[in-house]
Amino acid sequence: MRQAGTNLPKVGRYNQAVVLERIQRADGVTRQEIAQHTGLTPQSVSGIVRRLIDEGIVREDGASREYSSGKPRTILRINADAGRAIGLHLDPVELSCVVVDLLGQPLVTQRVPTPAGADPTEVIAAMASLVQDVIEVADVSPDLILGLGLASPGPLDQKDGVVVSPAQLSHWGRVPITKLLSEATGLPVTLDNDASAAAVGERWAGSGRGVPNFAYFFFGTGIGGGLVLNQQVYRGGSGNAGEFGHMSVVQDGLPCSCGNRGCLETVARPAAIVAETHRRLQAGSASSLAKRFNVHPTSVDIRAIDAAAIAGDPLAAGVLAQAADYVATAVVNVVNIIDVDLVILGGHGSRDIGQRYTDAAARAVAARVMARTIRPVEVVLSPLGADAAVVGGAALVLHRAYSPQLSELLSD
Amino acid sequence: MRQAGTNLPKVGRYNQAVVLERIQRADGVTRQEIAQHTGLTPQSVSGIVRRLIDEGIVREDGASREYSSGKPRTILRINADAGRAIGLHLDPVELSCVVVDLLGQPLVTQRVPTPAGADPTEVIAAMASLVQDVIEVADVSPDLILGLGLASPGPLDQKDGVVVSPAQLSHWGRVPITKLLSEATGLPVTLDNDASAAAVGERWAGSGRGVPNFAYFFFGTGIGGGLVLNQQVYRGGSGNAGEFGHMSVVQDGLPCSCGNRGCLETVARPAAIVAETHRRLQAGSASSLAKRFNVHPTSVDIRAIDAAAIAGDPLAAGVLAQAADYVATAVVNVVNIIDVDLVILGGHGSRDIGQRYTDAAARAVAARVMARTIRPVEVVLSPLGADAAVVGGAALVLHRAYSPQLSELLSD
Repeated sequence: MRQAGTNLPKVGRYNQAVVLERIQRADGVTRQEIAQHTGLTPQSVSGIVRRLIDEGIVREDGASREYSSGKPRTILRINADAGRAIGLHLDPVELSCVVVDLLGQPLVTQRVPTPAGADPTEVIAAMASLVQDVIEVADVSPDLILGLGLASPGPLDQKDGVVVSPAQLSHWGRVPITKLLSEATGLPVTLDNDASAAAVGERWAGSGRGVPNFAYFFFGTGIGGGLVLNQQVYRGGSGNAGEFGHMSVVQDGLPCSCGNRGCLETVARPAAIVAETHRRLQAGSASSLAKRFNVHPTSVDIRAIDAAAIAGDPLAAGVLAQAADYVATAVVNVVNIIDVDLVILGGHGSRDIGQRYTDAAARAVAARVMARTIRPVEVVLSPLGADAAVVGGAALVLHRAYSPQLSELLSD
Repeated sequence: MRQAGTNLPKVGRYNQAVVLERIQRADGVTRQEIAQHTGLTPQSVSGIVRRLIDEGIVREDGASREYSSGKPRTILRINADAGRAIGLHLDPVELSCVVVDLLGQPLVTQRVPTPAGADPTEVIAAMASLVQDVIEVADVSPDLILGLGLASPGPLDQKDGVVVSPAQLSHWGRVPITKLLSEATGLPVTLDNDASAAAVGERWAGSGRGVPNFAYFFFGTGIGGGLVLNQQVYRGGSGNAGEFGHMSVVQDGLPCSCGNRGCLETVARPAAIVAETHRRLQAGSASSLAKRFNVHPTSVDIRAIDAAAIAGDPLAAGVLAQAADYVATAVVNVVNIIDVDLVILGGHGSRDIGQRYTDAAARAVAARVMARTIRPVEVVLSPLGADAAVVGGAALVLHRAYSPQLSELLSD
């Protein structure tokens, strides 16, 4: 966004989005409360609400709230059925797709394995067919669909809607995925990296609702991140902010596929924990997993390691504690650098390890962050769980259509 | 900033600031160019410029530029003498004070040692007397002074204008410095941490002019940082963003005064380099500094170490290279996390080591940053040099008075 002036029509659209977001965020709200919270005049709020009701996006829910003045005030809510958004998550292992209502609530979710070999054309065909299936199962009328949001591993060139050889699909080159997917589905496509999408989902329907500044640590196959700063999704100068997984936490550590070394990903993603556990078992360290490892090495996966740690196995507990310690350091660094109010951990890769990472990070933030005496910073595990990215993909569409976007207030 | 709506008077003030900033940033600009760049209508620009000329802040410089249309267009410039701002830098070792004109150009600079013992009352009295001296030497008429900007080590509680026991002045507790200094000088005081102030100075009069997103690594007695994101100074949820010096870069490293461990400050600030050099000399490592160290240990300071490294001493070169490598890792981390367009290194602590750090960081950014194939990120040494913080202090005043502030566009 460049330094531009603004004008009345842009202000009108922006204020409408501010009002809509207030209604979306509250569990029932009156016109008076909206005016109070946004600083807009009661007349402006009334005018905007009338238009939103006419368009069917907002409804009066029949109930009302009485104030000391005695006059009952009508409660407003989002009309959840006024539209649908489709979310799609491209993960190197699995494609998932969801239909959500206007409140971001999932109606139907489906998953298929990502076609092996993973040639772009083939993957896009599989995506389009999955989208078709989900629309049919959810029985959505085409004119209700606002669009398709694609959550993809980064890096992305968002200006051109291009995926640039993500770490796990490095043979992909520059794939113009927005254009190809839009042609294959007939839907307008909004692209974002999986972690930013998950952050948007969290802002729309999870722990990030109403929090002005937060960081999202996204655990997928790798580790990514999303940032909401000053109520806006912050994407950075090239659209690639929040690469938390590629923060170097081990000086002179292992080389990472990204070109950096000692990255958080190399020590804390699920595959790194499994590799480190196998390494220690191979070296003959005592562990309840040793027997199992000798018979079926691959059965010593992240779930088995987590279970062994819970049962008190010192090797498993040690590996997980070390990984959690690196995650905690990374979280402390992000809080010291960006001074967020909240850190959320989530994504499908956090299934077995998320709570442990969250606890370690919460302890570290309370003890080691520079501004800890000024205000507490919360660290939480995402309530959206494994579906964070795909629900986030759908939320991208809602966000684009309905959230107040400074970039639009200030663009031509 | 909360999610608020906006209205016409706020838009008017904001647009005026956008126009003023355009004039300030350009080296001469026409009304037509302003309209083109800001997206405002020619009529709006003309009205705003007329008001700015009436107020004396902007002047027509007599020259004009001819376009293909043939009609000559008048060039507008900031009237540098229409106001003065005072900058003050509180460093644990030295107080410095500057008077700048409306373009941020220093007219008079003075320095005094920070009173030893450093009781707040005594330090504030010394500050007020320094400000008085500088105003007298610069012969500034009181009605021209827009205000006093104080650059102080963090953490700060900006809401209350309070300095909260900075790492180097830890016996200070919560000092209400804005109020005390305003009472002592009779001037309105704007407070920011030294690193954010330096970033504002860089945006007003240095390498940061016109760059939408940049990070400033501030080397003082410690290492701080400032962030400009989406054209705005980003301060974070508690006003303490950019603590780059307290990024943990050595897992299980030395405890830092901030409560964290392995912080960049513990391995890369000037005192850390001196300590590490002394440690290696003590241990008997071969070096051209050994003789000098045995006679006058304290003479082996940062300047002597730098000179020895330049002359080819392997011990000095090794210590500096290791510190530079940690700085490079920290810079790569910040770029991966915040995706800025530019990284600036500066501050008085960068005097002897800044170029070395800058070169190492530039090489690392080109080779190790995640989005390096999407666009290059520049790393530069600040042209404001040792005066970055105090000039930045003065720039805080100009910034507050004249820069387009989204927070004001969107507040009540």
